[in-house]
Amino acid sequence: MTGPDRIEARRVAVREWMSEAEVDALLVSAAPNVRWLTGFTGEGLLVLGERGALLCTDSRYTVQAAEEAPELEAASDGGHLEQAIARINASGAGRAGFESGHVTYASFQRLQEALEGAEPVGLDDRIKHLRAVKDADEVALIRRAAAVADAAFVELRARIEPGMTEREAAEELRRQMVLGGAEGPSFETIMASGPNGAKPHARPGEREIIEGDLIVIDWGAKVEGYCSDCTRTVMVGEPDERQREVWLAVREAQVAALEGLRPGMEGREIDAIAREVLRERGFEREFGHGLGHGVGLQVHELPTVGQKSENEVPVGAVVTIEPGVYIEGWGGVRLEELVLVTEDGAEVLTLSPYDLQ
Amino acid sequence: MTGPDRIEARRVAVREWMSEAEVDALLVSAAPNVRWLTGFTGEGLLVLGERGALLCTDSRYTVQAAEEAPELEAASDGGHLEQAIARINASGAGRAGFESGHVTYASFQRLQEALEGAEPVGLDDRIKHLRAVKDADEVALIRRAAAVADAAFVELRARIEPGMTEREAAEELRRQMVLGGAEGPSFETIMASGPNGAKPHARPGEREIIEGDLIVIDWGAKVEGYCSDCTRTVMVGEPDERQREVWLAVREAQVAALEGLRPGMEGREIDAIAREVLRERGFEREFGHGLGHGVGLQVHELPTVGQKSENEVPVGAVVTIEPGVYIEGWGGVRLEELVLVTEDGAEVLTLSPYDLQ
Repeated sequence: MTGPDRIEARRVAVREWMSEAEVDALLVSAAPNVRWLTGFTGEGLLVLGERGALLCTDSRYTVQAAEEAPELEAASDGGHLEQAIARINASGAGRAGFESGHVTYASFQRLQEALEGAEPVGLDDRIKHLRAVKDADEVALIRRAAAVADAAFVELRARIEPGMTEREAAEELRRQMVLGGAEGPSFETIMASGPNGAKPHARPGEREIIEGDLIVIDWGAKVEGYCSDCTRTVMVGEPDERQREVWLAVREAQVAALEGLRPGMEGREIDAIAREVLRERGFEREFGHGLGHGVGLQVHELPTVGQKSENEVPVGAVVTIEPGVYIEGWGGVRLEELVLVTEDGAEVLTLSPYDLQ
Repeated sequence: MTGPDRIEARRVAVREWMSEAEVDALLVSAAPNVRWLTGFTGEGLLVLGERGALLCTDSRYTVQAAEEAPELEAASDGGHLEQAIARINASGAGRAGFESGHVTYASFQRLQEALEGAEPVGLDDRIKHLRAVKDADEVALIRRAAAVADAAFVELRARIEPGMTEREAAEELRRQMVLGGAEGPSFETIMASGPNGAKPHARPGEREIIEGDLIVIDWGAKVEGYCSDCTRTVMVGEPDERQREVWLAVREAQVAALEGLRPGMEGREIDAIAREVLRERGFEREFGHGLGHGVGLQVHELPTVGQKSENEVPVGAVVTIEPGVYIEGWGGVRLEELVLVTEDGAEVLTLSPYDLQ
């Protein structure tokens, strides 16, 4: 199966859902969903009919739409939503689905007012669920993103030394990713040194790294729209006993989850494996977030892997496994791998080296 | 007036609008609006009552909310929207306004279902209109952002030479902005060399800069959330006659608009000044976009300054003036200043040097 066939297969899956939801037309407006269903990376909306499809964009993207989605009809006159409405009206659709979690109330009002024959029908986020299972093209791009991020980390690791600020280190990691072929980082790098490591979402600041610091580094690259996501906690100097103890507890929790993961498990079951290890080590209260999340065109997508996640994690999902321990005033340790869920379990895609083992 | 008083004054203006719209409570969900009304930079929603206010956030942001908006009550248990609903229900509000252009249909449905006494009322984007007029704190931050971006440009300009790729040059500009104190760029830098300059929204690529190139550089810095936006078109080597002719036509169009701008003019009147100069020079068809847009917490905000913009440009607005000429196969020239609209006209905030004059 080649790239265009894979994209066509995605549209086939969405049309099955349309049939189930009894809509004759579907307005797709969330940008990652439009990209996933067309390959088009510019701004626009997609109208899917039972057979035809129309990409609603504007003159800035006419050439790009023809290059990226040559098999699709594209319109570029007038507003995106107005083009979509005109097409739905012309199609004679009786029920027109839209993404409830993305279309604004103002756009819904416009649909109500301007759709002539069709009733606008708010639908759930099924496309996000479909996107949770990656095809071979998507896995290949995520692998590339992870490899670029790994190579950049190796370069950075050799350069980290006392006196460097968090911001400088984060910038260097970014620079290495871009030089290595990334479109950019897949999210703002976390570079949390010493006590800053206690904040899971710390932003890189002006603190200078000192001997004896643990540094939580959470970063990812983006390649052709696909994200990677990885965390290492590195040691500047020799770890003391407490640092080693916390580090090893987090690593043990992570390895247990990586080994225990099986396709079809609910997210909360996978989370529980790691959480149980940290509970045994006395760090239950210090692990305050979920174990992981899906990664793809967005850095946070389905399935979720947290304490309350009832979604099953299917074969073909790409998820993070990222336990952490955060101690106010002391710092933190988080270790994160990005894995592909296979028939057998979890294949690790992130290959950055560990400081401790 | 100090910072907190300025933020309080913004809430007073919004409460006047609430009274006009006959709502007892207002749910503010668009992130730049929440930030503008509170100073809080994390994730959350704001519920404004006739007197009280509640910042609905979560445990990740409890400390930050207390630091950034100490005068506001903050909640952090449960989902943001659920907290807001509980507060509106407890307040006994009869009509609860929300931002139509931001709240999704799914959230609207949830409001309809869970609000007990209050009717949800979709409102227009008045807060965006209020944000179009900057106060002294905002102007000071935009000036700082512009100054950081100018200094970075001077550094970059000295380094541009044949053999450098667009991407390398864009990364260098970014690096200089961050080293100079920017939180980051305010948008993805455009670095469009030679024929790539014909695409107004070109992304920096692997093309190497060569002698004889014009390079369109469109960039900005972000400082404490506020954006700058500037464009220069630089020459590598000596310009030929055609390059000089196009460059001077664009500069003349820009200067005419900068000199002609008066507060209270409609956006389309300002656009027309520049467009007329380019028409006289034979480049009317080569100027395919609007003349400018407002800049603040977002890099594109109100007022708009385009051919169809009927909004008046008030004193205190910060807008771009950015005519351009784009010629397929040849390249392009765009020159952009960021200006503060004053009683007398336009004060230019961007001070990056020009190659040609």
